[in-house]
Amino acid sequence: MLALGQRARQAAKAVREASAETRSAALAAMARHIRAAAPTILAANGEDMARSQAEGLSPAMLDRLKLDPARLEAMAAAVEDVAGQADLLGEVMVDWTRPNGLHMQRVRIPIGVIGIIYESRPNVTADAGALCLRSGNCVILRGGSDAIGSSMAITEALRAGLSEVGLPEDAIQLVPTTDRAAVGAMLAGLEGAIDMIIPRGGKSLVARVQNEARVPVLSHLEGICHTYIHQAADPDKAEALILNAKLRRTGVCGATETMLVDAAIAPSLLPRLAAALIAKGCELRGDAAARAIVAMGEANEQDWSTEYLAPILSVAIVAGIDAAVAHIGRYGSGHTDCIVTEDAVAAERFLHEVDSAIVLVNASTQYADGGEFGFGGEIGIGTGRLHARGPVGAEGLTTYKYVVRGTGQTRP
Amino acid sequence: MLALGQRARQAAKAVREASAETRSAALAAMARHIRAAAPTILAANGEDMARSQAEGLSPAMLDRLKLDPARLEAMAAAVEDVAGQADLLGEVMVDWTRPNGLHMQRVRIPIGVIGIIYESRPNVTADAGALCLRSGNCVILRGGSDAIGSSMAITEALRAGLSEVGLPEDAIQLVPTTDRAAVGAMLAGLEGAIDMIIPRGGKSLVARVQNEARVPVLSHLEGICHTYIHQAADPDKAEALILNAKLRRTGVCGATETMLVDAAIAPSLLPRLAAALIAKGCELRGDAAARAIVAMGEANEQDWSTEYLAPILSVAIVAGIDAAVAHIGRYGSGHTDCIVTEDAVAAERFLHEVDSAIVLVNASTQYADGGEFGFGGEIGIGTGRLHARGPVGAEGLTTYKYVVRGTGQTRP
Repeated sequence: MLALGQRARQAAKAVREASAETRSAALAAMARHIRAAAPTILAANGEDMARSQAEGLSPAMLDRLKLDPARLEAMAAAVEDVAGQADLLGEVMVDWTRPNGLHMQRVRIPIGVIGIIYESRPNVTADAGALCLRSGNCVILRGGSDAIGSSMAITEALRAGLSEVGLPEDAIQLVPTTDRAAVGAMLAGLEGAIDMIIPRGGKSLVARVQNEARVPVLSHLEGICHTYIHQAADPDKAEALILNAKLRRTGVCGATETMLVDAAIAPSLLPRLAAALIAKGCELRGDAAARAIVAMGEANEQDWSTEYLAPILSVAIVAGIDAAVAHIGRYGSGHTDCIVTEDAVAAERFLHEVDSAIVLVNASTQYADGGEFGFGGEIGIGTGRLHARGPVGAEGLTTYKYVVRGTGQTRP
Repeated sequence: MLALGQRARQAAKAVREASAETRSAALAAMARHIRAAAPTILAANGEDMARSQAEGLSPAMLDRLKLDPARLEAMAAAVEDVAGQADLLGEVMVDWTRPNGLHMQRVRIPIGVIGIIYESRPNVTADAGALCLRSGNCVILRGGSDAIGSSMAITEALRAGLSEVGLPEDAIQLVPTTDRAAVGAMLAGLEGAIDMIIPRGGKSLVARVQNEARVPVLSHLEGICHTYIHQAADPDKAEALILNAKLRRTGVCGATETMLVDAAIAPSLLPRLAAALIAKGCELRGDAAARAIVAMGEANEQDWSTEYLAPILSVAIVAGIDAAVAHIGRYGSGHTDCIVTEDAVAAERFLHEVDSAIVLVNASTQYADGGEFGFGGEIGIGTGRLHARGPVGAEGLTTYKYVVRGTGQTRP
């Protein structure tokens, strides 16, 4: 493991100093090599699938693991998209001159070496490798054991792309073992070789990373997302938005888990919203006030902080915007929260007072996605408060340095 | 300790939502209350000094601890300066509209609750309290035991300023105990109440914080700063710059600890630089090539990574810019490094390839300071790679959220 770190650190200088064109060419070559290696990748994935099925992996996890020609093409196309993205490195973010003549710039640079620890989905290998290279970083990938064969085959294609343009293959490395101790070594930072760890996976993985990491972590915690139906909500928009926010895909972190409804509008609107949700197969769990209006199961204290990732919605009746903001502050995870209202003053208050990474008015919480933000893919959605928050694309994988040009100035 | 965290968290909402004017008025009031409380603060400091002297604190540390009317006035004036700084909160950092009509903004917000753990200097209490309030944060201060009486008296003045304008006093709290377990509780995050820890102090404090913290840390590691005299250096500038960079103040983190001199220019220039440094009382420790040119002590392997914080300079002869960059990459701490040269191409290569938080050409490394950058004070100099690097002022104590305004958009 330490050798992986040393190789990444050695590769970092070449990647950092390569031109934007070289990095773009490498990404384009990586997409070509993924396509060319399709038979190898699909065969490796077939073995992963067979082994995982025999080991009793759940159907949902098997579906995440599975690759087919269409999914593989989507993976190659995503890498190609990243190849076409603007390169951010060297951007002068701020530029000023001090009274003593010192010319100062804040210049965008890569972070360095990023460790990514993820679970089943093999496409993360390609997505993460591409975004890290776009932002001038080296990456050490530690995929889940279920997908180890698929990830190795994909990594080989990525490395062939690097090699083709003369960049060091070790800019993208996959930990070749499924040993849990390898994760521990990464969390300890591989003797200073890793600058940042990004965990992508379930609660237990993220908890282990946050507890053990000795290097900075870009965490993606769970998404306890809320859609708040304000008393001035447009009923048609409210229905369309809650259906989409809850049910478009229930397994994504931007799915709404709790609907808050103003008491003033609940008697007239909740029956309609509930009927629409139930008709689409959604289970409702309400507080006493909600249950007094529509028959539904009972939400207990735990429901308010549960990420169902399933067609289940908890429903609370609130006295107004202060109560809604307080509920979100108490139970939310700082991920994504929405107000549905035609009242601009109420909307602005909500946007200002809710302290989450993404706050929306009259738009589905399922827009919490780097692609939907125009970031060209994402490495995750940051719910922490430092460095990058919300959808994290290539920009979130950069940092800066200060460049100071003088003419011999000494400090008095 | 947990009660402190809860009170900070409760105060955070009011501070975050207060207007820029209210925060400015609070800062101005804090400066007035520091001046008004001068007799109380100086008396408390006198007791701290007497106790610390009896306990055998070193003269250098006693000097850091000491307050007098001039230092107290400087402290009040610094808080007043922060009162006059532009407020950054609510700034729209990026603004764009997606093809589907969603209007997106990245908006600057405070981090939340910041824990600051520091050692002797009582003025950190006022500086840190002021910068945290300017950036809309609440702060929990844990000062050194030597200065506990001074820090308590200063904190009371700051809190009186908050109270005067109707902001919660608990926006600024001082841990009222010198118990080391209090630091442990802060590093554990006070059950989620602390969003970021900033250690300000010596190596052992920073090491403990990095090892034990379960919340993000904004670290200020040591400054192993280099001044590299390139073969195209102007000799007069080189002499002025190395004297200033090493000797202006030897105890600051931006002081140069190692001078690198190009082999091509060393025979003619090193004798002059060495004579000037020695004349000012600086001890030189050189590698074999330096010692072959000028008589000086021997630098061992350890010297290259030692932050002397004293009038001692290690000297290495390098074969050229690649060797200089490699030396800095191997031994430097990513803090501040300078090239002295009249060759613009060499300068740009150095600025590009040295991966430190601050890189300079023809300017003293002692400019590594938030005030000198125009940031109006600093909470420290970040040597990590995430969030804020280099001098960290009020801006480094902020983060952002995404604000999305729609008209009923649902995600396809």
